[in-house]
Order: sequence, then C-alpha cells, then structure tokens
Amino acid sequence: MKLSILGCYSATPRIIAHTTSQVLETRGHVFLIDCGEGTQIELRKHKIKFNQIKHIFISHLHGDHYFGLIGLISTFNLLNRDTNLHIYGPKGLKEIITLQIKLANSWTNYKLIFHELHSSSSDLIFEDEKISVHTIPLDHRIYTNGFIFKEKPFNRKLDINKVEDLNIDKAYYRKLKQGEDVINEKGEIIRNELVTLLGRSTKSYAFCSDTAYCESIIPIIFGVDVLYHESTFLEEHANLCFKTKHSTAKQAATIALKANAKQLILGHYSTRYGSLNGFKSEASIIFKDVLLSDDGKVFDF
Amino acid sequence: MKLSILGCYSATPRIIAHTTSQVLETRGHVFLIDCGEGTQIELRKHKIKFNQIKHIFISHLHGDHYFGLIGLISTFNLLNRDTNLHIYGPKGLKEIITLQIKLANSWTNYKLIFHELHSSSSDLIFEDEKISVHTIPLDHRIYTNGFIFKEKPFNRKLDINKVEDLNIDKAYYRKLKQGEDVINEKGEIIRNELVTLLGRSTKSYAFCSDTAYCESIIPIIFGVDVLYHESTFLEEHANLCFKTKHSTAKQAATIALKANAKQLILGHYSTRYGSLNGFKSEASIIFKDVLLSDDGKVFDF
Repeated sequence: MKLSILGCYSATPRIIAHTTSQVLETRGHVFLIDCGEGTQIELRKHKIKFNQIKHIFISHLHGDHYFGLIGLISTFNLLNRDTNLHIYGPKGLKEIITLQIKLANSWTNYKLIFHELHSSSSDLIFEDEKISVHTIPLDHRIYTNGFIFKEKPFNRKLDINKVEDLNIDKAYYRKLKQGEDVINEKGEIIRNELVTLLGRSTKSYAFCSDTAYCESIIPIIFGVDVLYHESTFLEEHANLCFKTKHSTAKQAATIALKANAKQLILGHYSTRYGSLNGFKSEASIIFKDVLLSDDGKVFDF
Repeated sequence: MKLSILGCYSATPRIIAHTTSQVLETRGHVFLIDCGEGTQIELRKHKIKFNQIKHIFISHLHGDHYFGLIGLISTFNLLNRDTNLHIYGPKGLKEIITLQIKLANSWTNYKLIFHELHSSSSDLIFEDEKISVHTIPLDHRIYTNGFIFKEKPFNRKLDINKVEDLNIDKAYYRKLKQGEDVINEKGEIIRNELVTLLGRSTKSYAFCSDTAYCESIIPIIFGVDVLYHESTFLEEHANLCFKTKHSTAKQAATIALKANAKQLILGHYSTRYGSLNGFKSEASIIFKDVLLSDDGKVFDF
C-alpha cells in the first residue's frame, strides 16, 4: 500500500497547510480519501493520473473534507473523462453536487455513481477480489465515517522445483496459486501446501478523521496495520475536544494501542501549533510506533 | 483604483494557472470579483485582509468563477467574522451556498446577504456616495453578467488663497468642496468656481468575463477607463468561440475600440497556449493600449 498525503491540516486551507485529502494506492486501485479545496492541484503535484481515480470516499460534509470535490468532478469532465466515478459519502452529497452541475448546465460525459451513506454501523461499501472497504462510524459534530481498506489474500507462490519434480502440467499453475489441490500427469492428487509457498502478506489501512475519542471503533479496526487517526489538539487544549468533537494526539495513541494497530499516523492538526513535534512526543508516551503525516509525505507499507 | 489579479486562466485550476478571481480596491472598498477554487489562498498571498471584503460579485455559475466561494464563506466564519457579507450573483447561488452550510450544520455568525441577479438588462446593484456598480449582461452559455464600477466625483479642492482673500468662514469649506456656492462674512454670494478647483478625476473599471463577442455591451461600458475583457482564444481557434461562447483577443480589442475604452486588459486565457504573447500581439492590431493580466499582477490606475 502506498499512501500519499495531499493535505492533513484542519479547518482552513493556508498557503502551506492543505486541508484533508489523501490517496491510497493498493492492488491496482487509486482511492481518493476526502477532498478538501485545492485537492486537484495537489493531485497534479503528486503526478497522480486523474483517470486512475475511480472511487472517492468522503468522510463528512465539513468543508475541509470535501470542498474540492465539485472542482475535481468538473475538471474530470473538461478533460473528457469517460470512466465511471464512484463517490461514497454522507447523504446530501449527491444533492450538493447535482445542484451545482445543474446550475452550470454542465452534466458530466462520464457516469457519476453516488453511494450515499447513512448507517450508524460499520458496513461493507466496496469489494472486489483484491480489496474490501468498510465504513468506521465516528463520533463528530455531524454524521461522519472513517474507512478501513483491507487487502484480500495474495496468490500463493509456486515452489517451481517441486512443481517440476512432480510433473504438474502448466495448465494447473493458476489453480495452485489460488490455493487449490491439483492432479499431476500420473493422475495423483497433489496437495497444494506441498508445492506452493505463502503469498505476500496482506495489509490493511484505517482512516479515522474527524472524531472525538471513540472506543466503539476498536473492534472495527482491531489489528490494523496502519491507523491514520486525527489529532487536532495537544494536551494543553484537551478541553476543546469536548465541544469540537476532535481528539488529542494522546487519545489517538490510546485508540491505536487498544486496537493493537501496528503503526499510527497522526494528522488533522490544528494550525495553531508552530511545530508538529508535540504531537509525536505526546502520542509516543502511549504508543511506540507513531508517524507524523504532513502535506506531500508518502508512506509505503 | 487598484486591481489585483488572483487568477485569470480559464477552465481548470493548475499549479501555476489559477481560475478567475480579482480584487478591486477603490474609495475604501475592497470588492472581490469572481472566486475560483483556491481564491482564499491567493487572497492570503496578496495579504488582502479578509474582513475588508464586504461585497463579492459572481459573474456566473461555471465552477472556474465561483467554486472558491463556499470555502471563503466558511473560512470567514472560522475566523470569527462578524461583518455582514453581500454576495451578488446569479439566481441559484444562494441555494447552493445555503445547502452546503445546512448540511455542515455550520451557520455563519455573520450575516450573509444574497443579491440574486436574473435581469437581462444592465441594473444598478450597488451604490453609495463614492461608487456605483452596474451589471453588464453578457452572452455566454449560461446566465452571465459582467460588472462596471464607476467612481462618483471626488470633492472639489479649495483654492485656499482665494478663500482667505474673500473672507469665507471655515464652516463653509465642506460645502465648497461639495460644489456649492456660499456666502462670505460680508453677506456676498461667492460662486463656487471662483474659489475651488476640479477634484481628482474619477475612474471606471469594467469586468467582462465570460462572453462571446457582444456589441450590446458597448453602450453600457462606453468611455470606460479600463476594460477587462476575456480573450479565451487566439485567432487560430476562433472557430471554438461559437460553440463555447467565448471571445478571441481580437474580438476583445474590437469591443474596446468601439466602446472607446482607454485601456484593455486581457484575461481568461485557455491553458492550451504556451505563452501569452499572441494575445497581446493579436489585440494590438486593433487597439493601441493592451495589457495582459496574469496571476499575481497588480494594476494601478
């Protein structure tokens, strides 16, 4: 999985602090997660091809998470896109986008498919043979979801010497990679484990922004490889979390610890802080493997 | 008048080509004209104080002219603005903005006052003692207006020696500056022209974007000091003007000539051209005083 942070600051976009948007590349998919104002410019900076984005996930309808969406949809159209675009986001998003398209009399040449979310439980919202995406219901001022992306098992690898020794026809190689037993040229059943090795290990990524401290997400994200969890505030402003329904770095780390996550990436920082060091140091007291997101940063895992 | 170009390219925002937005500063007003995506970032770059913007004029509901508006409105709110904000734009704009505010449950603490436009004639939409603003109905694919900003006469200047020679009480100085006749200490009527000089000359600025070649605007803008007129295409693509309802540089210059404008500023360039030189050279064949707008450029007149 490759995660590109296009923006990871809260509230208002500034010259050097972009609002939330990130791209997750995995198994041939290019998933766009949230889409703050100016996201299309950041996509260009990262040289991410617009046509490869087929699924956009919007966590909630606060502007710093979606004001760039209508611009991106329009740009796709101006660039003559013909690939379908799936948009997953809260109920109401379709109405906003459709109204703007209608008033501009600029209907898209490609198909826009909205998957409006309103459930308060974790739902499977996308699935193919390589990946699944579930919502993570969060606790924010308005209806908000995080998203967890889980790779499905990779094919097993052939132990090529053994396969040749046992005279297995090449026509069966695909079945073997898929974990099935096969028959060799002598008619003998060959058990899969004898001639194949475990494929690449699968990864999972959970995106949680914005939310108050919310233990109900723990079973949904349990054991996740990489958890992005918002940390709008440092401890000195912990009192603001209650009213704004945001989290501190320490709270994000507590969730990571209790959910047995392997790594924690912090983000959605309030722009009141001069440096990001405090976020890492406060979270690191609770959880050992803490990374800081920042605009333009890329994580490979 | 001081005109700051925040963005002057058509269609899609790019890393070094922003969509339409400009700021006109005149007589204590800071007018924002159009508001493409990312305008709030460009305002910050130009160090224009958000609170001074009290009037925003939106020409039409194509995204490259207004997608930055909702973000700006939200940012004003997050920065605790309490000054009223007047927005002049096509019918439908209020519905778009209100829907987004409602779904975010983020009603502004300041007052948003929409002035929705739907007339096909040139109307006075703003006026105070220093300036007037009229719409300029344009010919585009959807309902579109330009705007003409006209300064009202400046006060006359006192010819201080004459005023003192004629024993005029200081209490009358204000009346004199406003052009009125007064009575001196001996009870004699003093004609204004005898003791005052002409005040600063007034200026006018017309913003015309986007439009096909449209001679009906000539009487509305006749004699304007500075005309900003869109020039999306060069002559080699003049055939595209018909379908897209845009203008060439040559057509913009023809309007400037026929309207007896003093200066022409070109803009709204298609991003297909590597350089802006062609726009100036093609327009200059028709009209003598042609300037090129560009992102970040400031014109004083």
